[in-house]
Amino acid sequence: MTDDGFLDACRAIAGPAHVLTAPGDTAPYLTDWRGRFTGRARAVVAPATTGEVAALVRLCARHGVPIVPQGGRTGLVLGSVPDVSGTALLLSTRRLNRVRAIDAFNRTMTVDAGCVLADVQAAAGAQGLLFPLSLAAEGSCTIGGNLATNAGGTGVLRYGNTRELCLGLEVVTARGEVWDGLRGLRKDNTGYDLRDLYIGAEGTLGIITGAVLKLFPQPKAAITALVALCSPGDALQLLKLMEAHCGPTLTGYELMSDVCLRLVASHFPNLPQPFPGRYPQYALLELSSHESERHGIGLLEGAIERALEAGLVQDAVVATSIAQSKALWAIREHIPLAQAAAGKNIKHDISLPISRSADFIHATSSRLEELYPGVQVVCFGHLGDGNLHYNIAPPEGIAHDAFLDEQGPINRVVHDSVAGFGGSISAEHGVGALKRDELPRYKSAVELDLMRALKAALDPLGIMNPGKIL
Amino acid sequence: MTDDGFLDACRAIAGPAHVLTAPGDTAPYLTDWRGRFTGRARAVVAPATTGEVAALVRLCARHGVPIVPQGGRTGLVLGSVPDVSGTALLLSTRRLNRVRAIDAFNRTMTVDAGCVLADVQAAAGAQGLLFPLSLAAEGSCTIGGNLATNAGGTGVLRYGNTRELCLGLEVVTARGEVWDGLRGLRKDNTGYDLRDLYIGAEGTLGIITGAVLKLFPQPKAAITALVALCSPGDALQLLKLMEAHCGPTLTGYELMSDVCLRLVASHFPNLPQPFPGRYPQYALLELSSHESERHGIGLLEGAIERALEAGLVQDAVVATSIAQSKALWAIREHIPLAQAAAGKNIKHDISLPISRSADFIHATSSRLEELYPGVQVVCFGHLGDGNLHYNIAPPEGIAHDAFLDEQGPINRVVHDSVAGFGGSISAEHGVGALKRDELPRYKSAVELDLMRALKAALDPLGIMNPGKIL
Repeated sequence: MTDDGFLDACRAIAGPAHVLTAPGDTAPYLTDWRGRFTGRARAVVAPATTGEVAALVRLCARHGVPIVPQGGRTGLVLGSVPDVSGTALLLSTRRLNRVRAIDAFNRTMTVDAGCVLADVQAAAGAQGLLFPLSLAAEGSCTIGGNLATNAGGTGVLRYGNTRELCLGLEVVTARGEVWDGLRGLRKDNTGYDLRDLYIGAEGTLGIITGAVLKLFPQPKAAITALVALCSPGDALQLLKLMEAHCGPTLTGYELMSDVCLRLVASHFPNLPQPFPGRYPQYALLELSSHESERHGIGLLEGAIERALEAGLVQDAVVATSIAQSKALWAIREHIPLAQAAAGKNIKHDISLPISRSADFIHATSSRLEELYPGVQVVCFGHLGDGNLHYNIAPPEGIAHDAFLDEQGPINRVVHDSVAGFGGSISAEHGVGALKRDELPRYKSAVELDLMRALKAALDPLGIMNPGKIL
Repeated sequence: MTDDGFLDACRAIAGPAHVLTAPGDTAPYLTDWRGRFTGRARAVVAPATTGEVAALVRLCARHGVPIVPQGGRTGLVLGSVPDVSGTALLLSTRRLNRVRAIDAFNRTMTVDAGCVLADVQAAAGAQGLLFPLSLAAEGSCTIGGNLATNAGGTGVLRYGNTRELCLGLEVVTARGEVWDGLRGLRKDNTGYDLRDLYIGAEGTLGIITGAVLKLFPQPKAAITALVALCSPGDALQLLKLMEAHCGPTLTGYELMSDVCLRLVASHFPNLPQPFPGRYPQYALLELSSHESERHGIGLLEGAIERALEAGLVQDAVVATSIAQSKALWAIREHIPLAQAAAGKNIKHDISLPISRSADFIHATSSRLEELYPGVQVVCFGHLGDGNLHYNIAPPEGIAHDAFLDEQGPINRVVHDSVAGFGGSISAEHGVGALKRDELPRYKSAVELDLMRALKAALDPLGIMNPGKIL
């Protein structure tokens, strides 16, 4: 079949209007979110149904055409953009965007993979229920992309990763068959866990087209506090105290260093500063109460009081209004924006055993300071589940762009340290093309062989998102 | 190699004392828990280390000898006993029984697969932490068996299945290699989810030899209540009310019909009856408070009061002492024992979308009554996660043993009804050899093909627990 013949066949499946080939039309799909890389594609196709996805995959399988699935294109590891060869068909899920059903009594929602996360949250909210997955890109990212990368976010401490929020999947396999695993069951032990194999596989084993999501009763109140701390070690001690005192009402626990707060203050001077003084570290806490706002505030204040008595907390502010709560979260949310405004930096999305995260920060930052005196470590993240964003910016006076040349050696220092502390070099962003070459360094040959065996078993032609993960 | 040569090689690996061949020695390993089936084995071997397990698997791979892994032998689906061919090596994990490490700060415990569940619970408790997996066989079953079958139990509503309680695994693959996936991380997105593939695979893809388990802060108080209800539908309405009112403090929600309570009363007349009157259904509720016993009781009583006002609850008793709480749970725990005392019955371990479980009970029981007038439906279970034990005993006056002849037709009625309501024919027990022939009836060809492809990829010689699941 000629290339024209292939494209005609795509048009026959998805409709001519939904097969884009003109450079001006395809460009927005080909560059990654951070603007670091632009690939090429044979065409961009946007099917409207699972049946169309399956027909497209069968077409690609017949002709050996690689397929790159793409959701909201907000990924940070080059997982949803094609390489530069121009051989791939880019399959956008943006037209697969229906909420198929909500069963409020079963606390489940069945959705198309292309639904935007914020729309999923809103649909749950309209039923008085909570879909707790929450992350910075929620206005653009799709639930299919969240599932493909097993996205994390700020609610993992209480609700788990996307994996834990999904009960069932619909997947178009690499052979172009539809696996209907859209089960809304809390317990189902009838064979191998295909669901969790496709979740986190970044589209390399098949294309997720639908999902059954778990919903939760909406808490009556969410209470936010910011506390000032002397060290990451104290942040860990406080986490332990909070968990013992508050149990599952503790729904968020974010760490931010003073470097982060100074960065936010200098780029967003209109954001209010939470404390008159400065402290080395801060923790942002969120409690959710199913009883009442008063109950939540009482519980949180009681815990903070104990922490003050124990000398763990230097100062604290508990938000007493939604506006105040938003202002506290705004500091946290502006860290990546302030970093972007400051210039390019070397990012790491890592996780550690919670117990070792303070030691990791200390050891790794010391090592980097030895190698690059004055280097800026911008460290913040979801300490409650051991996930840190550990980003490195140049010393004062050194150009950000020039410093990027150090990316290789700095990655090596950070990732080697992560491995030494028993951590992971990708906590919530995935592997994509960006970290593919890092895997063989940190995974055993046994594990990589098992992964390759699974890839060969489920995608024998190697057409599903090639060059990602493996 | 002769059979003697093979056994000598086993002895060289595990030590002569740990390779059993005399019928008197092997017998306890060859009969299933319910005493329904006895298989045969070439030998029973009990290795003491992961290295010994790996060496045994390599030996079996070289000689094409099937391996049947066995934990506490408490499974109910013939998953851990060999077939009658006598070709298999039965590998008992009972000597792999060390708690390797506890990291209280990371809330993780690393254990050998052969640790008995109750010992794991106790080791967590000794650190002031909770390992929430709880089920009837906990005094005998092993954590490796719990993982291999993804066991459920009474805490799933709040804490999830065994799958959700595991962060990392160590597995001996079908090639006899050791995959060290003993990670204690809450977030790790670096490739395919091997962990969840081995969990629930019932030893058909490899042998789980170790695991990193998730621990939780110990609640300060657990409060139990029993409420009397008119119908399963009211039990569902009450569940919804309780969840909205109590949020994640609701840690248990069990349904029992009056048939169950009468059965318990007739076989265990010394157990106190909770209510002076009789009601069609009962729900056993458990709340866990991280604040105080008083807080838990207040919350539970407040919710029950609302339910009484709404006419959902007919009567209620809240336990005010540990002894009273144990007495309420004892009723629930004696149901299977009372059933066993009454004679053999036809068991089903099923799950449904929670929203459809009351309709399922009504429709299926009506159909069975039509076919077998006077039939006894003994229905109880974990309604909070849609898991019912739906057991069928003969009408009064019909011998239990003779009624077992109806097992085939009754399974068909129940399982067809489960499928019609979107449920699963195995909620928490697994498939084993018992339900293997049922799978093709209720799984799509696409799903079975995917499962077979995974089996062929990870166990190409077909030596891992053959005849189970697929």
